[in-house]
Amino acid sequence: MKLLKKRILDSAIVLNENVLKVDNFLNHLIDIELANEIGKEFAERFKNKKITKILTIEASGIGISCVTAQYFGVPVLFAKKQDSINMETDKFVSQVHSFTKNRDYHIFVSKKYLLPEDHVLIIDDFLANGSACKGLIDIVRQSKATLEGIGIVIEKEFQHGRSQIQDKEVQIESLAIISSLKNNQVEFK
Amino acid sequence: MKLLKKRILDSAIVLNENVLKVDNFLNHLIDIELANEIGKEFAERFKNKKITKILTIEASGIGISCVTAQYFGVPVLFAKKQDSINMETDKFVSQVHSFTKNRDYHIFVSKKYLLPEDHVLIIDDFLANGSACKGLIDIVRQSKATLEGIGIVIEKEFQHGRSQIQDKEVQIESLAIISSLKNNQVEFK
Repeated sequence: MKLLKKRILDSAIVLNENVLKVDNFLNHLIDIELANEIGKEFAERFKNKKITKILTIEASGIGISCVTAQYFGVPVLFAKKQDSINMETDKFVSQVHSFTKNRDYHIFVSKKYLLPEDHVLIIDDFLANGSACKGLIDIVRQSKATLEGIGIVIEKEFQHGRSQIQDKEVQIESLAIISSLKNNQVEFK
Repeated sequence: MKLLKKRILDSAIVLNENVLKVDNFLNHLIDIELANEIGKEFAERFKNKKITKILTIEASGIGISCVTAQYFGVPVLFAKKQDSINMETDKFVSQVHSFTKNRDYHIFVSKKYLLPEDHVLIIDDFLANGSACKGLIDIVRQSKATLEGIGIVIEKEFQHGRSQIQDKEVQIESLAIISSLKNNQVEFK
């Protein structure tokens, strides 16, 4: 996606060989015009799939997912990272490792909102090592819903998340694929 | 807002005298059609204000804010609840108490994204005791930006959040105001 790649080149900051900072348009300040273009692009790439629900993970996946959901006409379900006293006791749980925060955590989805008849599109801002994505796939599997696809805004290919996703059948669409962040340079695939 | 009140009566669950569960359309599963109507309503209520940025707090404020932002043509900035290694060191910080999670936590906004020339609309899903909202107002004050208004989806009036907000000048718009949850009944003001 040209517009996104241009924005990455113009505005993203390479913190080190592993970390690309995009908090000025994607995961702290959110450029809604760009989010809309991202939503349209996901709708185009998954136009042959029958989607009933978008599944994402808090917090930075939510904004992109909600804007995208308008193009599919479906609700957004976001996995929570922390147990709240208001949360269902009857829930799907999976474990995720955050490399940026260097800790393991559990993610939760209420069983009421992910059903065997659902056709799910997973959306997230980043695909790095694939841990968050694997957790979301695990939850879809537990629910017996059909996983129709995975839409990623930025994939850091050199962190091999794609190969960690066991289900080779699923359509994965990344709007920008980065092959290297070496020497403070963003290199696209 | 009639549509929202109807949805609350039809779908929300009164957990006890203090807690209204709306995770089937607002803060776990998000009904995007309803979110759009909420966005339009905020745009109407703040149409005389010049807004340059919507400020909210992760996680459940983000979805509503991103959909709403489309009607204002402005970006969304969300305060983060946890320090990440990718986060700016140069940030505005405030403290918030969560009654549902029964703990204090800090919220952060990078100083780069909230400027004295900004005109800010704060959006959140709930106004209960007002702690989250006070934290966001505090951050706007630190930044020297102008606070133009506060848009709340559901206000639990009996928890007195509105009176906790010190700035009496600011326009506060709540789309549904609940005066009581006693006897498992939602009563609107």
